[in-house]
Formats: sequence, structure tokens, C-alpha cells
Amino acid sequence: MITVKELGGRARAAAPALAAAGTADKNRALFAVADALAAREEEILAANRKDVEAGRAGGMTSALLDRLTLTPARVAGMVGGVRQVAALEDPVGQTDHVVRRPNGLLIGARRVPLGVVGLIYEARPNVTVDAAVLCLKAGNAVLLRGGKEAIHTNRCLSALMREALSSCGLPADAVCFVEDTARGSAVAMMELVGVLDVLIPRGGAGLIRSVVENARVPVIETGVGNCHAYVDTEADLEMAVRIVDNGKTSRPSVCNALETLLVARPVAPAFLPLVKRKLDEKQVELRGCPETAAILGDAVRPAVESDWETEFSDYILAVKVVSDAQEAMDHIARYGSGHSEVIITNNYFTAQRFVDRVDAAAVYVNASTRFTDGEEFGLGAEIGISTQKMHTRGPMGLAALTSIKYVVHGTGQVR
Amino acid sequence: MITVKELGGRARAAAPALAAAGTADKNRALFAVADALAAREEEILAANRKDVEAGRAGGMTSALLDRLTLTPARVAGMVGGVRQVAALEDPVGQTDHVVRRPNGLLIGARRVPLGVVGLIYEARPNVTVDAAVLCLKAGNAVLLRGGKEAIHTNRCLSALMREALSSCGLPADAVCFVEDTARGSAVAMMELVGVLDVLIPRGGAGLIRSVVENARVPVIETGVGNCHAYVDTEADLEMAVRIVDNGKTSRPSVCNALETLLVARPVAPAFLPLVKRKLDEKQVELRGCPETAAILGDAVRPAVESDWETEFSDYILAVKVVSDAQEAMDHIARYGSGHSEVIITNNYFTAQRFVDRVDAAAVYVNASTRFTDGEEFGLGAEIGISTQKMHTRGPMGLAALTSIKYVVHGTGQVR
Repeated sequence: MITVKELGGRARAAAPALAAAGTADKNRALFAVADALAAREEEILAANRKDVEAGRAGGMTSALLDRLTLTPARVAGMVGGVRQVAALEDPVGQTDHVVRRPNGLLIGARRVPLGVVGLIYEARPNVTVDAAVLCLKAGNAVLLRGGKEAIHTNRCLSALMREALSSCGLPADAVCFVEDTARGSAVAMMELVGVLDVLIPRGGAGLIRSVVENARVPVIETGVGNCHAYVDTEADLEMAVRIVDNGKTSRPSVCNALETLLVARPVAPAFLPLVKRKLDEKQVELRGCPETAAILGDAVRPAVESDWETEFSDYILAVKVVSDAQEAMDHIARYGSGHSEVIITNNYFTAQRFVDRVDAAAVYVNASTRFTDGEEFGLGAEIGISTQKMHTRGPMGLAALTSIKYVVHGTGQVR
Repeated sequence: MITVKELGGRARAAAPALAAAGTADKNRALFAVADALAAREEEILAANRKDVEAGRAGGMTSALLDRLTLTPARVAGMVGGVRQVAALEDPVGQTDHVVRRPNGLLIGARRVPLGVVGLIYEARPNVTVDAAVLCLKAGNAVLLRGGKEAIHTNRCLSALMREALSSCGLPADAVCFVEDTARGSAVAMMELVGVLDVLIPRGGAGLIRSVVENARVPVIETGVGNCHAYVDTEADLEMAVRIVDNGKTSRPSVCNALETLLVARPVAPAFLPLVKRKLDEKQVELRGCPETAAILGDAVRPAVESDWETEFSDYILAVKVVSDAQEAMDHIARYGSGHSEVIITNNYFTAQRFVDRVDAAAVYVNASTRFTDGEEFGLGAEIGISTQKMHTRGPMGLAALTSIKYVVHGTGQVR
């Protein structure tokens, strides 16, 4: 079997051709990918059935099986997603900060591809296409390594993308796929110094932690979201109920879902029963501090320390009564993962202070944290949500997959 | 002795106050630093004399002794540098990409400090002040770890900055200084996950390599420069001589100095004697390929493979005759460190192709690579030159010491 290092070398060798490709060339390849996905739906679904059967035989949970399973509608979704990426503006070549210096040098920062992007991801096979086409549109080659659960589907999808690239005169190796799904292949990717310009893990907290701690190549940390809502003394309580309900129950498995509710003491007796009534409709389990329990009674399970730290990704919400916005911000600073945080308040100054002081990728006033998303933010598709501060933070669109180079035009200047 | 981890914790605890400080507060602190440097010049020079004496006793080379030594003029230079940073525009709080989304959400990317910046550096004590004040101006706390050669000077300078911060109502711990100069303290810094938001090594190639390979915190790789000049068939040869001479001899020890000269075969017989005559004035040693030797004769030492890879940082230049721009670009792709590369040509298309294809932080047409510098590029002072693609590339000004957070103003929107 070809080694991860050899595959990385092939992607590296393909990168200059992708970097040099014009927007029209790249879009033509993306449309070819979309057409191939549509034309070869049966083949894709057949490959996927092998994975699903193996998963079922192996006792995979129904939630995981659902993420793994492709349907005609999901393939159509992938096709639409690829066409959408083709329609996005190409960041490559855009030049910022152009200055004419006093000595006559003309200097600009031109946006260029990163080079080779590595992706390690888990069960959902649509990541294979979604992520790869974003990388390609930004002029990068990509080295993909999915989970063993989706190996047949991923192999089929990456072969299809490679053929589409070739048919458009671009190197097939701009998409390289790691067939080896043993743990060693992920470790090998983390060590591709000089080959991968960046490695992006997409998946559960365990995968992300492992990559961040072990990688020797640059990493973009994505997606762990322990998000908080703080309902202020001066909140519109009906609005707060809507925002908390939406944050917790519209899609509990995603990283921008709410995990902890912080309520200002003066409004707790009025607000907590209101929000509980709404959350009861979806059988949300509440884990509360003693004051919460005193207000809501036995229906609340006592919160333990680990509840404040946990991304439940489920119909579970930790609830704590706090004295004021400062205590809420202190709690967020201590337990938050720097993803998305929201204050619900009518007070202008409290809102400003919250926005100024809370350190997270996205800080909201009076809106659901569920909006932290590339499309909702107007960036087009996203490859993930960065919770680190370096390079990029928050939803990562095409620009996050680029770097710059300074281009300097002179007429013989020396220093 | 206080551990590196404890010091990091102190800097971390001081970071929110720095992040919340307004531009006026930060500038007041910087002016206090400048005033203290000026007022306590004698104390600084006395501390520095201890380091210089220890260095001389320990057999330090005269080049290193020169970098270590402070003089009244150099202290004045530091004072001027601090005032210059105070005068720079504050990036913190600037908001880009503000959009009103169709659902009414108002979303903007607000520039925020990184948090805590770690710096590991070598002999030059002025880095202690130059780097720290840039970090402070961008709202960051800083953890400094200089070399043992400059320990007395660095201790004096950091104590002085801490006092100046305190006197302005900012936490002294925004500048923390690692007194322990054993290798273990550098390793400890590389492992401060959750404490350092970024670690920047400044110094020789060995230090930078060690940090890049071993750090578990995010790193910005700086400064290794194996820079090339390509003299094209259609070059203005007189201009090429000026650019090569300036690149090699104006300051050979710096990272934007030239290390390799590539000459197109058709102009080699005319150009090589011209440039040699100029470089002879500074006794530059030439290490040439066989064709170079055939043209220039015995004065040229034969180049070996390692000469193409080496950042000489000295009056040494590797010289190779190539067939055309393509061979020059191939050589640069193979041996370059991605710092600064220049083509000298009168041909419009060759220039464009060079600029498009060469992958480096700065790509020049007809100007000296010596301009790769924050001040020369109009960024104000710089904390180093990034040769990586992630986060920032090229000269790093204040903006490179910041991140963003998305601020989202709503009126009750849910998804």
C-alpha cells in the first residue's frame, strides 16, 4: 500500500499546478465534479451501502449510521454544494494594502493558496467532497483521510474527483486519498513537515485534541463548542426563551448549540419556569445549580463540576443562577471553549461590556448562537469553525484556506 | 526560582486587562517605558557591562559581543523605537467585513489581541524592549525568554518595563521575564498549552528549527532566509550589479540578504565579470558552478551541494549559471526558504511569470531583497519576518499580533 508520505509527496507535487490555475479552470473542474456526482449516483450509493452494512453488522449506533448513510437527496445536496462553491468569489489573486512607498516601490499583499491542506475527519462521507472542493477552489491540493466507517464511500468519491480533475487538465493528485484507516496513518499525516501547509481535523473532541497535541505540522483547531447564554436582569424574557430554546434544541449535536444557561438572580424566579416549560416540549434534561433546583424543584438534576465543562451535544442543558453579568463572564472565561457566547439584555451598556470582554470566536447580543456558520455569516460555504486565534477564527470560508505573498515592483531600488 | 509555568499563568492573568486597555492607556504606558529607558540609561549600561564582561571572559566572538553591547546611542535608539510604536495606529478594535444579513443580524469581525505572546530570543538585548512594546501596543501580555548572554541587561530592561506599566495602572505582569536561561526553560515555554497563544522564536536557524519542531503551542516561524537573485537574459546588467551588491554586502548577517545568484547563460559572460569586480571591493567569496568558474577563473571556489542550501549570513555568495527563468524558478523552489526572491529583467512577461510562480513571502522585480522589512513595507515596526504561510507571512507588524472575534448584534433572531 502506498505510504502516507508518498501520497503527501504527490499532493505536494500537484500543488503548483493548482496554485497557477485560473478561476475559470478551477470552476470548470468543480462543475465536472458536480456532474460526475450526479451521473454516478448509483455507484456512490452502492459503495455507501457496503459501509452502512458493515456499520450495522458492527453494531454502529443509529445516530452514527444516520451520519454515514447517503441517499439520493444527500447526493443531490453534495452536487448543489459543489456548484455553490464554484459560484463563490475566488480569493486567490486579490491584492490588499497596495502602497507606493516614498522610494517608488509598489508593494501589495497578494492572496495565494496555502499549498497542501490535510484533512482528518470521521464518519460523514460528504466531508470528502465538501472539504475537498473548498480546498481546490482556493487553489490548494488536498490530502484526505476519512474514517474506516466510510472507506468505500470515500474511496469512490475521491476517485470520482480525481477523474474529474484529470478530465479538465488539472492533476488528479490535487486530491489524494489515504486508504489506510489505521491510527498510524493519522499520526503519519501529523508528521508531514514540509509537505502539509496545514492540517484540519474535523470530528469529535477526541480527534481534535489528539491532532492539536500531536501534530508537528500547523493545525487549525476546529469545532469544540461549550457555548453559553446569559440571561441578564434586563432581558426580554420571551425573547430569551426563544433564543435558549433555539440554541439548545434546533440541532443539539452541532458545535454552535448551547450547553450552559446562566441566569441573573433577579429574573431567575420568573425566567426559569418559563424556559423549562418550553424545553420540556423536547424533553431537555436540566442539570442545575442549587438555586436553580430551589426554583424548579425535583425535575432538575443537580449539576456537578463536570457539567460546566461538558459539550453535551444532546438534549441536556446545564443551568446556573449568577449574580450579574460579571459573574456570567467569569464563568464563561473559566469554562467556555471560545466558540459562541450570547447575552440577552435590553441594557446598552451591559451588552457593550459583554461584547468587549468575552473572548470567543463569536459574541452575540440578542440572537441565537446557532448562527455561527459560514453561510449564515455570509462567507459562503465553510470548511469548519476555528476556535483558535491564530490564522483564522470563527467560520472558515475560502479566504481561510489562503495565505499572502508580498509582490514588490521596483525600478532598480537598493537600500 | 519561580517556574516558567507560574510566570505564564501570571502573564495569562494580566492579559484581560491589557486587552481591555484603550489606545490612550497603552500609549501612556509606552511613553512611560521610553522615559524610564532614557532616565535610567546609566543603570542599563551598567547591567549591560556585566554581560559584556562575562561574554568577553567566556571567549564570545567579536560579532556576538557587538550584538550584545549597548551604548548610549543604542539606548537612545530603543527609546526612539518605543515612541515610534506608540505613534503607530492601534489595530485593536478595528472592525472589518461588517455586513447586515438578510435576517437583520449585524455582523462584523473585530480585531482583538492574541492574548499572551511568548518570545524566545538570543543575544541582542534590544529585542527585550522592541518586541515587548509591540506586543503591549497590540494589547497582549508577553512572556520573554532571552539568552543567558544578556541576562543582566534583560533583567534590568524587563524590570523597568514592569515598573512603567504599574505606574500607569496596568498590570506589571503584562511583561513577564524568564530568569532561568537553562535549556529546560525554553522547552517549558514550548509546552505552555492554554497559556501562550503564540510563541515566536527570534534568533539563529538552530533556535527556530528547535521551536518549530518541538513546540506544542502555536508558533510563528521567522527569519530563515536563503534568498536568490535571478539575472535574466533581458536584464539591465548595471542595475543587476547594484541589486546584487546591495543584497549581498549592505548587511550580510540579516535574513533578507542574498545568498545565491542565478545568472541566465546568455548574459553570464558579460555579467559575471561585472558583478565580480563590484563584489571584490568587499572581498565577497564566490562559490560557483563549473560554468561560473569557466568564466571567472580560479578566483571562484567550486560550489558544493550544501552551498545552495546555506544561509551564509556572511560575505559569501553562491553563483550558478542557468538556462532560463524556468530553471531559476526550479532552483528557487528546490532550495529557497520562502523568504525573499528577486528577478532582474526588462521583460514584462518574464517578470509576471516570476512573480506568479515563485512561492515566497516577498517576490521582487528589479529591487533589492533587503527591503523585506516592516518599516520599509510601511507597516511600522516589526516583530520579525514570517516565513510560514499560516496566520501571517512576511514582515509582521502590529496586525500580526492580533486575532479577530465576530461580534453579532441581533434583535431576537433564531435559526
